[in-house]
Amino acid sequence: MAEQPKLLGALPSPFVYRVIWALKLKAIPYEFIEEDLTNKSPLLLKYNPVHKKIPVFLHGDKPVCESMIIVEYIDEVWPQNPLLPKDPYERAQARFWIKFAEDKATSVWRMFRSKGEELEKTMKETQEMLQTVEEHGIGEKKFFGRESIGIADIAFGSVVYWLEVIEEAVGEGAVFEAHRFPRLHAWIKNFKQVPVIKENLPERDWMVTFFKNRREALVGSA
Amino acid sequence: MAEQPKLLGALPSPFVYRVIWALKLKAIPYEFIEEDLTNKSPLLLKYNPVHKKIPVFLHGDKPVCESMIIVEYIDEVWPQNPLLPKDPYERAQARFWIKFAEDKATSVWRMFRSKGEELEKTMKETQEMLQTVEEHGIGEKKFFGRESIGIADIAFGSVVYWLEVIEEAVGEGAVFEAHRFPRLHAWIKNFKQVPVIKENLPERDWMVTFFKNRREALVGSA
Repeated sequence: MAEQPKLLGALPSPFVYRVIWALKLKAIPYEFIEEDLTNKSPLLLKYNPVHKKIPVFLHGDKPVCESMIIVEYIDEVWPQNPLLPKDPYERAQARFWIKFAEDKATSVWRMFRSKGEELEKTMKETQEMLQTVEEHGIGEKKFFGRESIGIADIAFGSVVYWLEVIEEAVGEGAVFEAHRFPRLHAWIKNFKQVPVIKENLPERDWMVTFFKNRREALVGSA
Repeated sequence: MAEQPKLLGALPSPFVYRVIWALKLKAIPYEFIEEDLTNKSPLLLKYNPVHKKIPVFLHGDKPVCESMIIVEYIDEVWPQNPLLPKDPYERAQARFWIKFAEDKATSVWRMFRSKGEELEKTMKETQEMLQTVEEHGIGEKKFFGRESIGIADIAFGSVVYWLEVIEEAVGEGAVFEAHRFPRLHAWIKNFKQVPVIKENLPERDWMVTFFKNRREALVGSA
């Protein structure tokens, strides 16, 4: 039997969860190597010398970096339960929304790290990002452009589930409002109900405490 | 005969050239539709409602947006002269460098638009970006990870060729220094010598004048 692939990560990183979900959806056994981000391991520095960031996926001795690139790599190597559509046009649409998540959802992490005017600005940016997905990204189907969970859902799942926790940790009012984003609310409900996702979501209350503490350390209390 | 695909663009956009190069490398006939960016057409707003940006690639009535996603789409639909490698690991490497170009080479466009301290900062960021590519991205081969031109070369070709022009238009000294980035200099020489690229590069002197004038309009003269 071939050696199991390894995932270098730290919890509860949303980017690491993207890879965990892909591996679990495909039932691929893997070894998780916990990384201490306050004291990065020689393994992490060796395998991701450019960004020195988690997640890193090790397949044999070959490292793959960047969460969504890892997910696409996994989808190409293990074709069961495909995460990308087969049709080139649908693939381009999925990639469009992945890129959108990568470029625009950074506002969520900036929101987590800011206060005062900058916090207001990042909250507004986050709502604009959500508004675009609500209007153009989520269609009439259960998931992004399809009836089963796919790669764009993995990209946004980590954004929206973490946002729900971060807005609570920040405590300055709702960002992801149900009346404003009804499609996204229906979608995240569908997402969380996928059995593999449900079994592999970090526990919400624990996360709120975790992010509250981290936020206090980063920006002080309100 | 099927209708030709259409490319909505404006010249000399580096992002539009990425698509032009992919189409030309694959010898795909297409129709170019010139877009006036000061007065965006209903076509552009209809087909790229999220970003309202060029390039947009129209295949039949199906729009594909985002330059590198268009290039990947073209590679999937027209498999001749493949731009992405076949091997999943090499594909992931190519995608890593595409993402790096998308995320980090934005410093080049910010450099073009700034002066004073901000200009110094963006020049430094650009050199750090180049340093990373010099050390980790360019290997021993003629192109990014291979002996023939590929998708990562298309991504960086637009960055480096435009940077050479922009540093001249900015006129605050060299950023892309030959002694500091010997591998990248050898690589861009190889890139420009590919016949299809050579025949489809905007003329350098015209570009310098174009960007000088635009810079003056944006930030005033030095």
